[in-house]
Amino acid sequence: MKAEVISIGTEILLGEIVDTNAAFIASRLPQFGIDMLYTSQVGDNPDRLSEIIHRAWNRSDIIFCTGGLGPTEDDLTRETIAKALNETLYQDEAQAEILRNFFQGRGGDMPERNLKQAQLIKSARAIANPRGTAPGWWVERENKTIVVMPGPPSEMTRMWEHEVAPHLEEKATSILVSRTLKTSGVGEGTLDEMIGPLLHSTNPSIGVYARVDGVHVRISAKGKNRQKALELIEPVEREAREILGDSIWGSDDESLSGSIGRLLQMNNLTLGLMESATGGALASSLTDIDGSSSYFKGSIVTYATEAKIMAGVSSETIEASGVISEETATAMAIAARTKLQSDIGIGITGIAGGEEVEGQPPGTMHIALADEKNNITYSHSRYYQGRDAAKRRAVLTALTMLRQHLIKRN
Amino acid sequence: MKAEVISIGTEILLGEIVDTNAAFIASRLPQFGIDMLYTSQVGDNPDRLSEIIHRAWNRSDIIFCTGGLGPTEDDLTRETIAKALNETLYQDEAQAEILRNFFQGRGGDMPERNLKQAQLIKSARAIANPRGTAPGWWVERENKTIVVMPGPPSEMTRMWEHEVAPHLEEKATSILVSRTLKTSGVGEGTLDEMIGPLLHSTNPSIGVYARVDGVHVRISAKGKNRQKALELIEPVEREAREILGDSIWGSDDESLSGSIGRLLQMNNLTLGLMESATGGALASSLTDIDGSSSYFKGSIVTYATEAKIMAGVSSETIEASGVISEETATAMAIAARTKLQSDIGIGITGIAGGEEVEGQPPGTMHIALADEKNNITYSHSRYYQGRDAAKRRAVLTALTMLRQHLIKRN
Repeated sequence: MKAEVISIGTEILLGEIVDTNAAFIASRLPQFGIDMLYTSQVGDNPDRLSEIIHRAWNRSDIIFCTGGLGPTEDDLTRETIAKALNETLYQDEAQAEILRNFFQGRGGDMPERNLKQAQLIKSARAIANPRGTAPGWWVERENKTIVVMPGPPSEMTRMWEHEVAPHLEEKATSILVSRTLKTSGVGEGTLDEMIGPLLHSTNPSIGVYARVDGVHVRISAKGKNRQKALELIEPVEREAREILGDSIWGSDDESLSGSIGRLLQMNNLTLGLMESATGGALASSLTDIDGSSSYFKGSIVTYATEAKIMAGVSSETIEASGVISEETATAMAIAARTKLQSDIGIGITGIAGGEEVEGQPPGTMHIALADEKNNITYSHSRYYQGRDAAKRRAVLTALTMLRQHLIKRN
Repeated sequence: MKAEVISIGTEILLGEIVDTNAAFIASRLPQFGIDMLYTSQVGDNPDRLSEIIHRAWNRSDIIFCTGGLGPTEDDLTRETIAKALNETLYQDEAQAEILRNFFQGRGGDMPERNLKQAQLIKSARAIANPRGTAPGWWVERENKTIVVMPGPPSEMTRMWEHEVAPHLEEKATSILVSRTLKTSGVGEGTLDEMIGPLLHSTNPSIGVYARVDGVHVRISAKGKNRQKALELIEPVEREAREILGDSIWGSDDESLSGSIGRLLQMNNLTLGLMESATGGALASSLTDIDGSSSYFKGSIVTYATEAKIMAGVSSETIEASGVISEETATAMAIAARTKLQSDIGIGITGIAGGEEVEGQPPGTMHIALADEKNNITYSHSRYYQGRDAAKRRAVLTALTMLRQHLIKRN
């Protein structure tokens, strides 16, 4: 089955918004045995939108559209599809009722113009959108399908996961399931050699990919349905896990922060931070995980030197070794443990900005970890590609270090 | 002049990489008087790439391609364009020399296969790429132009700024320059009315846009060159600034965190935070600004309730009013000031997760600000679109509140 994705909206076309929807949809199609041919972006322009929809209808089996479902005159997706299919728009009373309830639930009346969002055509059924006012459209005609979803990513992804994906899975004649094992501490080449014996299989097939958070191993199998595909993956995954052991830190959508959360919970350990150069970014990454409040005590973001001293880093240490030093990072890790009464403490001090500090180059990061026996682990790096990258890299290093510590103590 | 953008690469098409190049290019075209018609993504597939290039050549005056310029067999952009234009690829000796020097500069020999990147066609001249091995192509024929740039954004944007944009500016018969004034605290409709008298001008033209960080007013002028356009903008900008006054928090690429940093510095004030639900995200946003260490003291990320108490929030307040309450937020703001010895303190407590806490719905956020006279400002919101969105929204609310406080005290 051939598919294409059309992202609709002048703001997308003009680059005022980056189109993340197309990538989201594209990345989820292989599992349903759907081949991606094209993605394109078009403005809220009836002629060009119409041209693109016609071409897509002629060359693809399934078309995914996002955007242009708002209540204003600019929003033309419904009108253009209706015209392209030569069908008439009508107001669907059930949808109008849902809209009225949506607005009432938020304590207001529905503006008249929103009624436009309750429109359907004969070949379309509405797709529920609990996060917004625009329902999607699922159009089927002449063995072709058009799936229309709202543009805001939070509405689109929710609709995809709850409404669109399950339906695609039902319709699929074969399903591709992938399992990604995420590793750290082993280079791409070495890992490739280690799992060499597994690489010759074609179903499941195995691929090795270097990513920012480590090297990923992807095992993909095709089957008549999800269960059959999983049965093919299972023995290969078991072998891969045996070979790779502790270098695997997580699988599939799991993040490093999530995997660390699991390890902390499993070991009944709590964590506290003292961050300087990362300015709260490490704490923010750890608290992206649901349930993190059970192991994450907090972070003392001590941007100013006096804040470090108030938080328990001795001024003698800072004077003797400098703020940007192994000694200060270690003192911060220990102080974080004490202040936040956590089992493990991490301290980060360094230079996120583009200028030298205390004779050390931009991008220098000192990271220390202290555990409840006052064992200290330490790491430092010097590498500069701008402020954001420096913060991100330090967060990743700290997470990797923490994970390795948690593995080792078991 | 009509333009389109084609992003080439299977990883882009399959959504493994989000295409940021298309948005980058699109957002920079209006200034040269170039109209964007379409953007599209296509994989490293010769037939489909060829189809797209043919169609673009027929309907557009200028085509911007990115990607597919690597040294491997998958990289087909050069071959496909040559074929589409019915021209022959040849190896350009000057380019080959540049490539050899590039590799030597990094202490290695050039692999033979990289020679492919020194290829040109008769209608193309090479565009320098000091950040990578693939030069771009500037193709001119039959009054049409194709600009081909490498896919990695760091190479592409550098090439754009240093090589492509200056050339487009030279060729442009008129230049569009925009100045964006960013406001907060005024609704889109009200703002529209306020600047109503200015809206009738066509050159410069004025547009009002609701954005996540407030309402933006964009003044755009067309002139024979940049200087002429700026001269048209200047008086209208002055008028708009007079009308909008303090609601303007910044212009063009400035961020809310950056504008707040400026105000804090100007007033010689320091800031300290106590964050719970945002988990360090507010601190991280404030420290994205170079020089933030001069006014940002730090943040105490008190995820655990006991961490709040240790940091100076009284357990009586928490027991009496709950953790998720105005009272606790206020106590956190005051404690942040005291602990971090800052002039201004902000406290945030709320629910980033998807479940009810203390009978309050997901997304509830209580935000309080305390200044050095212990004046308290408070705000709360209830709105849930997922964990990330809840954190982001609270950060934005806190920044807006802080900015308003800083404006008012002047």
